[in-house]
Amino acid sequence: MLVGAGPGDAGLLTLRGLRALQQADVIVADRLGARAVLDGLAAEGYALTAEIVDVGKSPGHHAVPQDAINALLVQLAQSGKAVVRLKGGDPYVFGRGLEELAHCRAHGVEVTVVSGVTSAVSVPALAGIPLTHRGIATAFTVVTAHDQISALGGARDHTVVLLMGVGTLAHAALTLSRGERGADCPVAIVEDGFGERQRVTVGTLATIAHQAASRGVRSPAVVVVGDVVALSPFAPAELAASVAVKEPVLGKASS
Amino acid sequence: MLVGAGPGDAGLLTLRGLRALQQADVIVADRLGARAVLDGLAAEGYALTAEIVDVGKSPGHHAVPQDAINALLVQLAQSGKAVVRLKGGDPYVFGRGLEELAHCRAHGVEVTVVSGVTSAVSVPALAGIPLTHRGIATAFTVVTAHDQISALGGARDHTVVLLMGVGTLAHAALTLSRGERGADCPVAIVEDGFGERQRVTVGTLATIAHQAASRGVRSPAVVVVGDVVALSPFAPAELAASVAVKEPVLGKASS
Ligand SMILES: C[S@@+](CC[C@H](N)C(=O)[O-])C[C@H]1O[C@@H](n2cnc3c(N)ncnc32)[C@H](O)[C@@H]1O
Ligand SMILES: C[S@@+](CC[C@H](N)C(=O)[O-])C[C@H]1O[C@@H](n2cnc3c(N)ncnc32)[C@H](O)[C@@H]1O
Repeated sequence: MLVGAGPGDAGLLTLRGLRALQQADVIVADRLGARAVLDGLAAEGYALTAEIVDVGKSPGHHAVPQDAINALLVQLAQSGKAVVRLKGGDPYVFGRGLEELAHCRAHGVEVTVVSGVTSAVSVPALAGIPLTHRGIATAFTVVTAHDQISALGGARDHTVVLLMGVGTLAHAALTLSRGERGADCPVAIVEDGFGERQRVTVGTLATIAHQAASRGVRSPAVVVVGDVVALSPFAPAELAASVAVKEPVLGKASS
Repeated sequence: MLVGAGPGDAGLLTLRGLRALQQADVIVADRLGARAVLDGLAAEGYALTAEIVDVGKSPGHHAVPQDAINALLVQLAQSGKAVVRLKGGDPYVFGRGLEELAHCRAHGVEVTVVSGVTSAVSVPALAGIPLTHRGIATAFTVVTAHDQISALGGARDHTVVLLMGVGTLAHAALTLSRGERGADCPVAIVEDGFGERQRVTVGTLATIAHQAASRGVRSPAVVVVGDVVALSPFAPAELAASVAVKEPVLGKASS
């Protein structure tokens, strides 16, 4: 089973995902999201009896190469074990889920996919940012590769969500600021959503790279670009005022 | 609490969502997704004690107007009840979640948001379609409004997901076929995901409107446009062969 763990909070695991973990003999887990969810379940008193194999990157250690993960999954399944491959967020959103599934199927191992809560939607929500909002944004794009960012049309009412975007933030912001969105388009960075280092940084396409550098913004983070960012309680008042909200929608932030 | 119910399958509700429903005095539910999840929970033996208020559209009945929903939420909360507003998918993906939340906050009612599994990701997964896949697609856009579709750049390696797109399918397909994607770009429609009428229709931008009409495709449905559609076990062999997959990735469909 290929299971989406959600963005790293045990509460955002699905019921079917939990059941799969409880019935598993072996859980093959990524670091991001997946590991945090397993720790969170343990802390909440869910007893998992499965052996846990960690194939994610950890500080000072390389991740297990994709080929080795594929081979491991097939080997475990063929040995008759109930295997859960637990991936951060949703397996089909920049998750290489189908690669692993296809490898398994090609070796006669059947795989069921359990969708998860993606970080692309749930991490911006931590900063009070909806990806769409009537009168403010009616489309959103989730992207990481730079060639796609430069081909991206649309204006500020088309939200852009960058995953794996910390290293290339300056470049992406410059590219987007040259398009219809303009340099003063609002941007938010949400680092380590649901984690101990969770932090929100709000600026504009012109300022965000500098802010990120001076605050030492680190991966994992989700970057959101567009007028929806101005709806965030973390947005400075000037930014909020710069966005033409059709009706007053914002109250006080709850935290 | 504003809770995402997921796409209509009780197994894709989150643990936190379940807890909120179990502790609620009143659940204000939409028809799409939310209602199906409540029914599914009951069928699986979860006893919810909350009163359920259905504000969604049902055949022959109009939906409760948004203003009335907003007012109802505030009134229920102010009467001291634990209120859960249960919305299909994720509340912040074409869900008007922030509108309701802002209205509540403006009336002094605190609201917590619990993200959910969005249909934009999980319904295509039912057809075996990942929104991204190495070598095939490295960005995806979720959209409904036609002006956004026509402003959309990108080629077939940029997946497009249309929500609420059945009525405007012919128009959207024509617009997209005139762009870089071209008329032979693969398209899939997944109707009533996780429901009794679940059905997958695969074609191209040139053929899909005709297919949809002749098969009587109905809302709710998620439409996916791009080369990732060719990865689906539902895609005819010619379509699958037309897409330059860097490595052979597909095995047999499991159902
Ligand atoms: C390889 S992608 C996998 C995405 C995943 N499949 C999903 O649906 O969320 C990893 C990227 O997701 C984002 N991400 C995932 N979890 C996150 C979290 N808890 N906080 C911030 N960013 C996160 C970061 O941009 C990170 O670089
Ligand atoms: C108003 S939007 C709400 C989307 C929701 N907030 C989400 O995140 O999934 C409703 C549209 O979502 C799609 N949708 C939601 N649930 C679906 C399902 N179970 N099967 C097919 N389409 C679905 C359809 O395109 C429908 O018209």
